[in-house]
Amino acid sequence: MIVIGSELMTVLAAKINRYRGCWVTPKLPAEPAVFSQRLYYSLQVWQQQGIKVVWLTIPSYLSSLIAIAVKQGFDFHHVSHTDGKSLVLTRRLQTDAVIPEFANHRIGVGGIVFNNSGQVLTVVEKHDMQRRPGHFKFPGGAVDRHEMLRDAVVREVYEETGIRGKFNGIVGFRHYHKGQFGTSDFYFLCHLTALSTAIAPCPEEIGIAQWMHVDDYLTTESVIGFNKAMLKAALSKQYLTTTEVEMIVSISPEEYEVFL
Amino acid sequence: MIVIGSELMTVLAAKINRYRGCWVTPKLPAEPAVFSQRLYYSLQVWQQQGIKVVWLTIPSYLSSLIAIAVKQGFDFHHVSHTDGKSLVLTRRLQTDAVIPEFANHRIGVGGIVFNNSGQVLTVVEKHDMQRRPGHFKFPGGAVDRHEMLRDAVVREVYEETGIRGKFNGIVGFRHYHKGQFGTSDFYFLCHLTALSTAIAPCPEEIGIAQWMHVDDYLTTESVIGFNKAMLKAALSKQYLTTTEVEMIVSISPEEYEVFL
Repeated sequence: MIVIGSELMTVLAAKINRYRGCWVTPKLPAEPAVFSQRLYYSLQVWQQQGIKVVWLTIPSYLSSLIAIAVKQGFDFHHVSHTDGKSLVLTRRLQTDAVIPEFANHRIGVGGIVFNNSGQVLTVVEKHDMQRRPGHFKFPGGAVDRHEMLRDAVVREVYEETGIRGKFNGIVGFRHYHKGQFGTSDFYFLCHLTALSTAIAPCPEEIGIAQWMHVDDYLTTESVIGFNKAMLKAALSKQYLTTTEVEMIVSISPEEYEVFL
Repeated sequence: MIVIGSELMTVLAAKINRYRGCWVTPKLPAEPAVFSQRLYYSLQVWQQQGIKVVWLTIPSYLSSLIAIAVKQGFDFHHVSHTDGKSLVLTRRLQTDAVIPEFANHRIGVGGIVFNNSGQVLTVVEKHDMQRRPGHFKFPGGAVDRHEMLRDAVVREVYEETGIRGKFNGIVGFRHYHKGQFGTSDFYFLCHLTALSTAIAPCPEEIGIAQWMHVDDYLTTESVIGFNKAMLKAALSKQYLTTTEVEMIVSISPEEYEVFL
């Protein structure tokens, strides 16, 4: 491939934000030698322009460019899911530049579902049947990307037990720092009212799903203190409820939920 | 480099977990041709062994191997911070295999700090001074990696205003789906009691930091409804408090916090 000198001396297309961060447009030159040369030249220009941090997004189909960026001082930042998978890398051009962290929390929900006979919905997970029999928990699971807590808990309760529930509020939560992949997590316990009674446990995940009288649950020894405390709090009906409040104008109501 | 055939036919070192996931040991052959050959051979063996998902961790100093893994069907999963930065990639060997998602939430905290004169601590951020004057907020900021909410809010209030506070509980929170980097976020409002009175605003971030009488705050038009609602909830003293409860044995008390 023949490239004229002037093309190699062209700054890569980029957008500068108000923090003097420079986001390079992901349409990168696919030819490694060209990319290397142009990135090198661009960094010099950006440095002179007072840019603090360069953000570089490399799509997986151009992954041979990653090693070149690393050689020029770039650091892995996060995997982006916008328009297919890509790796976002950063390079500080000023030593005091602040690089905001990527997401570091995973979110789970559990449903404390009451029927009108003084009973609560409980499950034993299939993989607990052998090692922790009697470990009755509340149905629940992971919140999907961009899913609301109020929707996630209703969905998970239904998937695991076949019970339809109505979301009432957030009873409490646990914040935990030894999650999968070195992340932290939140596990939110939600108060729900059952809208149906017939249980149909998910055959893949659930060993037992059953209604238990709340007194039986609170006195069962194999139930952990955390779950008992959450049930007691749910019974006291002191939970955070979802509320409509005015946000700053740039946020639209489908994009958030508020509890207080 | 000369490599004997038998070395290329050696399965990469790996650990198999209970979900039939195979985590390849990050000590990979640095030579691209050797890595490519051994990865290809290993995938065949793992497929025969009934492995569902292969997890491959490539440290940034071996980033020339990333393109090889992509060519063999691997997908970017996340950037790991364990032992320096590395890229974790996945490859499904069974079509129904479930690959758990990486973290997708960032966490922030705000402090509703009361003194004993019926006043609340408020700030206007420096970058709001021009475009949104009178946008009095509560001091706060991002929770650090593996930091507790109760510690983060006390730290942020101090950094932004110089006020020492005592954490009392969680008043409410917002869950928002249009965060930076395509992530979602949680913003937790916390109830604090001031332990000092003299304000020393952070010169980099804060334009104004001042005590405001709660009635003045609630009747200031430029304060958004969200912050007014949170202040009212804080005044009602109905917040989730931190509690000691028994967890499953594998979790130690320094690793979590519980609110209910």
